[in-house]
Amino acid sequence: MSTEHAEVQEKFQIRTDLALEAREALTEDGRQTSGIVLEEWEEAGGEVRLSRVTVENSRGARTIGKPKGVYLTMEADALWKNDGGIHREIAEVLAEQILWFFARMEISPDASVLTAGLGNPEMTSDSLGPQAAGNLCITRNLRKAGRVSAIVPGVMAQTGMEAAEIIRGVVKETRPDVLLVIDALAARSVRRLGTTIQLTDTGIQPGSGVGNHRNHIDRISMGIPVLAIGVPTVVGAAAIVYDAVGQFMEEIEEQERYRIVKELVEPNLGPMYVTPKDVDEKIRRLSFTLSEGINIALVPDAYIEG
Amino acid sequence: MSTEHAEVQEKFQIRTDLALEAREALTEDGRQTSGIVLEEWEEAGGEVRLSRVTVENSRGARTIGKPKGVYLTMEADALWKNDGGIHREIAEVLAEQILWFFARMEISPDASVLTAGLGNPEMTSDSLGPQAAGNLCITRNLRKAGRVSAIVPGVMAQTGMEAAEIIRGVVKETRPDVLLVIDALAARSVRRLGTTIQLTDTGIQPGSGVGNHRNHIDRISMGIPVLAIGVPTVVGAAAIVYDAVGQFMEEIEEQERYRIVKELVEPNLGPMYVTPKDVDEKIRRLSFTLSEGINIALVPDAYIEG
Amino acid sequence: MSTEHAEVQEKFQIRTDLALEAREALTEDGRQTSGIVLEEWEEAGGEVRLSRVTVENSRGARTIGKPKGVYLTMEADALWKNDGGIHREIAEVLAEQILWFFARMEISPDASVLTAGLGNPEMTSDSLGPQAAGNLCITRNLRKAGRVSAIVPGVMAQTGMEAAEIIRGVVKETRPDVLLVIDALAARSVRRLGTTIQLTDTGIQPGSGVGNHRNHIDRISMGIPVLAIGVPTVVGAAAIVYDAVGQFMEEIEEQERYRIVKELVEPNLGPMYVTPKDVDEKIRRLSFTLSEGINIALVPDAYIEG
Amino acid sequence: MSTEHAEVQEKFQIRTDLALEAREALTEDGRQTSGIVLEEWEEAGGEVRLSRVTVENSRGARTIGKPKGVYLTMEADALWKNDGGIHREIAEVLAEQILWFFARMEISPDASVLTAGLGNPEMTSDSLGPQAAGNLCITRNLRKAGRVSAIVPGVMAQTGMEAAEIIRGVVKETRPDVLLVIDALAARSVRRLGTTIQLTDTGIQPGSGVGNHRNHIDRISMGIPVLAIGVPTVVGAAAIVYDAVGQFMEEIEEQERYRIVKELVEPNLGPMYVTPKDVDEKIRRLSFTLSEGINIALVPDAYIEG
Repeated sequence: MSTEHAEVQEKFQIRTDLALEAREALTEDGRQTSGIVLEEWEEAGGEVRLSRVTVENSRGARTIGKPKGVYLTMEADALWKNDGGIHREIAEVLAEQILWFFARMEISPDASVLTAGLGNPEMTSDSLGPQAAGNLCITRNLRKAGRVSAIVPGVMAQTGMEAAEIIRGVVKETRPDVLLVIDALAARSVRRLGTTIQLTDTGIQPGSGVGNHRNHIDRISMGIPVLAIGVPTVVGAAAIVYDAVGQFMEEIEEQERYRIVKELVEPNLGPMYVTPKDVDEKIRRLSFTLSEGINIALVPDAYIEG
Repeated sequence: MSTEHAEVQEKFQIRTDLALEAREALTEDGRQTSGIVLEEWEEAGGEVRLSRVTVENSRGARTIGKPKGVYLTMEADALWKNDGGIHREIAEVLAEQILWFFARMEISPDASVLTAGLGNPEMTSDSLGPQAAGNLCITRNLRKAGRVSAIVPGVMAQTGMEAAEIIRGVVKETRPDVLLVIDALAARSVRRLGTTIQLTDTGIQPGSGVGNHRNHIDRISMGIPVLAIGVPTVVGAAAIVYDAVGQFMEEIEEQERYRIVKELVEPNLGPMYVTPKDVDEKIRRLSFTLSEGINIALVPDAYIEG
Repeated sequence: MSTEHAEVQEKFQIRTDLALEAREALTEDGRQTSGIVLEEWEEAGGEVRLSRVTVENSRGARTIGKPKGVYLTMEADALWKNDGGIHREIAEVLAEQILWFFARMEISPDASVLTAGLGNPEMTSDSLGPQAAGNLCITRNLRKAGRVSAIVPGVMAQTGMEAAEIIRGVVKETRPDVLLVIDALAARSVRRLGTTIQLTDTGIQPGSGVGNHRNHIDRISMGIPVLAIGVPTVVGAAAIVYDAVGQFMEEIEEQERYRIVKELVEPNLGPMYVTPKDVDEKIRRLSFTLSEGINIALVPDAYIEG
Repeated sequence: MSTEHAEVQEKFQIRTDLALEAREALTEDGRQTSGIVLEEWEEAGGEVRLSRVTVENSRGARTIGKPKGVYLTMEADALWKNDGGIHREIAEVLAEQILWFFARMEISPDASVLTAGLGNPEMTSDSLGPQAAGNLCITRNLRKAGRVSAIVPGVMAQTGMEAAEIIRGVVKETRPDVLLVIDALAARSVRRLGTTIQLTDTGIQPGSGVGNHRNHIDRISMGIPVLAIGVPTVVGAAAIVYDAVGQFMEEIEEQERYRIVKELVEPNLGPMYVTPKDVDEKIRRLSFTLSEGINIALVPDAYIEG
């Protein structure tokens, strides 16, 4: 299918849903790259490293291959590990960052929030969004100023519809003030799997996500501000090969390497993903941390329990 | 909660989602009831008994307590039993009746159909709609004149939104020609559980369904024709008591019996349902029969397999 | 099937898996009933009421219709409610009581524990055991003195085997020191649903549980001590009618009432259960509280998180 | 962990659960390899290619790196595709081959069969066994000569026990005549994914399977004959790199390539798997075909439906 082919090409070109990885691909003195501002700091006693990449203009966007906007990355090795103690702290840092984005997006504290858990609930590595949405405190149906609603739009093979179509319909019908999407992402490097949370006010771009490419889900397509929260859970198989070949042949030129992977490897491995063996446990843990962070940010009163 | 209370009262009054049961509550010479036409016949060698109740006008609607429209009931004891052989035949009768309704509703053969699997996927007795929707042939995403899309809107406790809101949003966004909703119903009598399929062009009425009351899902609220397919999977606990007390005291007047059940029993049993012990297997089998019937009707070409 | 019939009869006779309900059926001065000792106290600031029924000898067993042993009942209205704050406290009381039983059963602190989540994972009201087992800290596979293993034996319609057969096989093969079974129970009264946790060293008796009758799972059949933890999640439909009829006709003699229910109502309602409309959320919350209590008792070190 | 490391090494060495792939790695004139007999033919009008590798003695076993026994491979591209028509035919070929193995293993036609669905039900690419087991006709619990029972032992992270321990316990307790295990396998080549069914009387070997290495499940460890049915659903990430590097540098010596992959790539990619994006749909379809084949073989009378 031609669209399938187009998707695969794009996937291999972009190769990462993470702005931080795209940024790292730039030169070392990238801090001075015109139109791109990088800030870095730590929280939770050094357990969580934060990087904020601000793409200020279209020149920066072209350079980094990502739309204009803010990309906040939280890195914490503990995220992917079974260390219960740290998860609550990470969730609290996440809650702060959500509220920082809300402030920047000029969303008032009593705004109504529609959350959308993107991805395929039937496919473990793509089920982060659906699982996180299932753990949210839903309050829109309650008496008082209910704020939080949630939808799991599924994937096209199950519904025959783009997730973007379903969400746009629900947005128009229920008129939330802001859309918060949760998604499983593809990274370039195995090292990022499950250790990185990315928040961005640019929404979801076509060709991102695991398993199915998504359509635009952003302020323009939805008509309301969109905050996207994602965690990489897979790496494209072609990217793995590209890196490994680089390890073998340091002398080989990057362009030549790219050309060979694209011609020899992509046709077979394009629609393949690399994922860890225990991805089910990791996704479950990650989805709890995400939903806890969102609950702390959006329903602070109700959130008494640990 | 007052709305909860209102719902319970209404539930006990209506006490059945089945027009056939409502019809049976009328006098024996009901065939002559003004504004209500009853037709009855058999198919599949007598295995399936069909009854078509047509409520012709508002007088008939008042009499039977159901909106104006057509209610087709298929009864087959085999539906609830583990008899594989008959299920395909029942599915074929169902397909015919779906197409009969489509013709009556003036829906063209190449119409696009949005199916909605109502109910709570997490609650077995209410999961008929979601399970059936999961087995449909989805074709809207395929190249040619794709017709079938599907959505599982979930329940308010999970989403914070009425199923009707979500579906209306998706209808407006994706513009299908007809909406086909699948739902688990409440019956008055244990005898009906899983042995009856009801089709109606009146859609879903408030207070029907299992587990959560639904809002209006009909041609007026959706803006397109609605065909509802339902199967009773539960009986309200208060109805069970009402019937049992009648068996005990035949002399007691019906109004008195009603009053007592409502005052003594309802406050405790209103939000309770009676359901069979092996409802999980039965729902799974029923949902296959429903989805097979819908697939035969809507995607006849693709449906080569048994 | 004769066993099916026997089960139904027995179910209606016993009508409750709860010793406390059986005890309540005795005379008001039951404290002096020979061979049955009742102790009552409160914990967690009065939020949890505890009752310990000790059946000391076969005379007591005959009187109460339950085997010799200790039955500890924790009652807390908050269990069934969405009050997060109290759940941790209830879990801690549960942990204490588990350890009390272990001490009484002379199980050493470093014993290995096989937990079995009884019931049908596919049927919401019967899925308490499987859900709770899924949330346990499994440690037998870890390096050090791993103690906790878990099995979900499923139900006969899915496996063709009695849960007791599967568990006995696993017990013989893996040689745990104690078996801890978690099960959804049937109560007599709607008031008990989800508000009561019962612990007993008598194990699981035939005909108890939801959905499928269980076989003996006790010290004799398993060869090791058995602690059973159960929560009522359903009430038999016949019991509901029996009670309701009593409300109607106080003058009717109990034996007559029993006879009529058994002859008129049981044949239809025997295999039917009454369950609340939002049982899915309640089971999920209950299973978390149970697993948290068990985790606190068995894996106190690992249990840092809230 | 040393066992983990051992597993990874072994995985990369063997790199395939398929005897056919192991056989292909031998020289082209392999038909004459001492101790290994290869037969090939077609069925279903050429749609299914069958290869039977018989490892006759320990010399053959050493050569091919697989235990002595028979390995039957069914290849059909249609297996992985959404072509309903062919699935029934493949299931019938599978049924024939199951019965061929039963005859060879001297299992009488009225034998009792315990089926075990290996793998992690929570991880899509590893859920083939559990899903197939869930679709079987269970007959052991029925009145007459019930034959089929089924167990889903789960994985160690969930149970704390080896699947082999659980199955051995159940075998000893319920005394079936034969054990039939269903498992998701790792292949060497992306081309094999989902297009190949392997049957073998050698059971399951340590280090095979997806997600978790399995322990021995064979006639010696279980005490009864074992027939294993497997389908490759993943490829090890290191194998992908190994192949891709070979495509790049044909001149590089195989041993050198092996050494580099093992030293550079394995430490990172050892516990990673490559799996297709739509593995959920494919696993669902495959599991139906497998269970249909087993049902036709074991419960031919009951199997009226399509």
